[in-house]
Amino acid sequence: MPLMDGSIGKQYLKDYLDKSDPLFEEHLQKKIDEAREISKIPAELLKRFLDTARRGKKIRGALVTLGYKVAGGTDEMTALQAGLVMELFHTALLIQDDVMDQDNLRRELPALHHQFKQFGKKLTVRGDFLHYGESMVSCVTDAIFYLSWEKLLELNVDSKNIIAAGKTYAQYAVRTAWGQALDITTTALGEIKEKDAMAILRYKSAEYTGVLPLLAGAALAGEKDEKKLRAIKDYGLAFGWAFQIQDDILGMFGDEEKVGKPVGSDLREGKNTLLMLHLAQKGTPEQRAFQRKVLGNKNITKDDVLKMRQILRDARSYQHVVDLGWKYVDEGKKQIPLITADKKLQAILESLIVYMMERVK
Amino acid sequence: MPLMDGSIGKQYLKDYLDKSDPLFEEHLQKKIDEAREISKIPAELLKRFLDTARRGKKIRGALVTLGYKVAGGTDEMTALQAGLVMELFHTALLIQDDVMDQDNLRRELPALHHQFKQFGKKLTVRGDFLHYGESMVSCVTDAIFYLSWEKLLELNVDSKNIIAAGKTYAQYAVRTAWGQALDITTTALGEIKEKDAMAILRYKSAEYTGVLPLLAGAALAGEKDEKKLRAIKDYGLAFGWAFQIQDDILGMFGDEEKVGKPVGSDLREGKNTLLMLHLAQKGTPEQRAFQRKVLGNKNITKDDVLKMRQILRDARSYQHVVDLGWKYVDEGKKQIPLITADKKLQAILESLIVYMMERVK
Repeated sequence: MPLMDGSIGKQYLKDYLDKSDPLFEEHLQKKIDEAREISKIPAELLKRFLDTARRGKKIRGALVTLGYKVAGGTDEMTALQAGLVMELFHTALLIQDDVMDQDNLRRELPALHHQFKQFGKKLTVRGDFLHYGESMVSCVTDAIFYLSWEKLLELNVDSKNIIAAGKTYAQYAVRTAWGQALDITTTALGEIKEKDAMAILRYKSAEYTGVLPLLAGAALAGEKDEKKLRAIKDYGLAFGWAFQIQDDILGMFGDEEKVGKPVGSDLREGKNTLLMLHLAQKGTPEQRAFQRKVLGNKNITKDDVLKMRQILRDARSYQHVVDLGWKYVDEGKKQIPLITADKKLQAILESLIVYMMERVK
Repeated sequence: MPLMDGSIGKQYLKDYLDKSDPLFEEHLQKKIDEAREISKIPAELLKRFLDTARRGKKIRGALVTLGYKVAGGTDEMTALQAGLVMELFHTALLIQDDVMDQDNLRRELPALHHQFKQFGKKLTVRGDFLHYGESMVSCVTDAIFYLSWEKLLELNVDSKNIIAAGKTYAQYAVRTAWGQALDITTTALGEIKEKDAMAILRYKSAEYTGVLPLLAGAALAGEKDEKKLRAIKDYGLAFGWAFQIQDDILGMFGDEEKVGKPVGSDLREGKNTLLMLHLAQKGTPEQRAFQRKVLGNKNITKDDVLKMRQILRDARSYQHVVDLGWKYVDEGKKQIPLITADKKLQAILESLIVYMMERVK
């Protein structure tokens, strides 16, 4: 097979978005109407959730459809509807993440708890507006988790396959929550330990980004071949690593407008990314002193971020992490022949994992 | 049928606790071990969740078993395991509620976010300890919601029945979240409107307490008779109302030690209970002036609470709400012959709803 760039993968994502977006809008609009029967407050919550959700890249939803197809699934509408389950879950996690990380911006919109802080002020709600905004996020994310289950259980698929997909969903969602607990604890501790950093990346991101949607899609198509499921899982994990590594790179080196949030926010929040881990291990004493000064410091300037970029290049942390990302791409690619013999699907799987490292947003 | 007191119902709850508690402990212990494979942090989170969860009254779990039995289910172990699903869900909601209401105490233990505030201090986590504690609650409740789904999907029951029960679970959980959003908004607004107060009680409490567990239990036993399901739903709603009304009464008039949290906390939090609603509508100008002074006031004294009790008695708000609770008991009782012809189950249904108004904790 000739080496491939990410263009086929990028196109697969675009096609998915074109087909999935109208379904997503239609579904959420129905749920907004149902919420309005209770009160205009939850309807407003869900409307604003949708504003943020519709701006997503929807990589996880697309992976559900791919997992479904490699397992022989043929009903495209089922695959697209199943994709919504993962997108609901994923967006709810991001919105919670913004509260925990005290982020103000998500996908170029104010973070949802900030939107509801303002909403509270306008309603002249008493007391602590930020607390009110955070409470509203707690309500909407609870609702979204359960709406995602409702969506899964409604799929026009054999009951046994729904239950198999649901077990996968539950299992990886629990691991994601534990990864998040570990992340906020180690971030707050301000220590970088390799073991924790790798566990966090794996559980709070790589697994649920790559493994969960592919395995859930395959389960919905009734896949039971253990060897094939193993290969899908290994490809998915490599995919998730490549995704997260590029996410960390874009968070430090990306174009602010394309990424949709201020570059350097991982730095301000003190996130234990692999870039930071490498620098802490391999940097010069001066470089590490600067790192200690800026990592987790909310008051750093744009110049500090630019200086950190230069240090990460000088210490070869940037190159080290980029190389690691491509190593995962190669690992993922090795699994492809074990997943499917369909040449077209093979090409999508290969190009899509390459695209994870090529993407600029 | 002779009129019944709550003793048979109380005994049914006690029997349920005796059988269910060891299963609950065993299940959570297994999940703590799984969490520990990721890190000791999530294991600690889950351990503390269990400390609070094991102190519950487990009314919802018991209702699952009752719903299962009235629908002809005969496998007691399945019913008991299904009860755990609701108890996981319910306890997670309470823990979130304590964050939103800024409560410090739950079931005589520090609220979980306060426990993790202290845990953060001991770890010498940086920054805002309360925010850290609240973030940990967000992680553990996410995990618990998904652990409850895992438990449901693992039940040894026909796949179609699991899906039917899951649809009920998802539907009512979403309504609970919307009820909560409405509650925190109207509480923060500091206005008492009858329509909102009734909607909040219904959605954030009565439905998920009574209707959800009974219908889920019946679905697991494969109940499809629409008339019977309707009767179960109506009984469940009346049950939920009676439960919530007595909860509000105990929150104002109960014995602090038995209730397990400071009496008057609803008052301090400015909760729109039916007691407050009646007083706002029927009280004298002086009584209403006092109400406006203390409702939602964090600094009220024990004497203020005692004075409010006297006012609620004088204005007949107390009697009005007690009467309303018993009216719901009667409404629920009317449904019983439509639910089951089994005399023993009829007696449990009748006595249990009576017990909801008789209980002192």
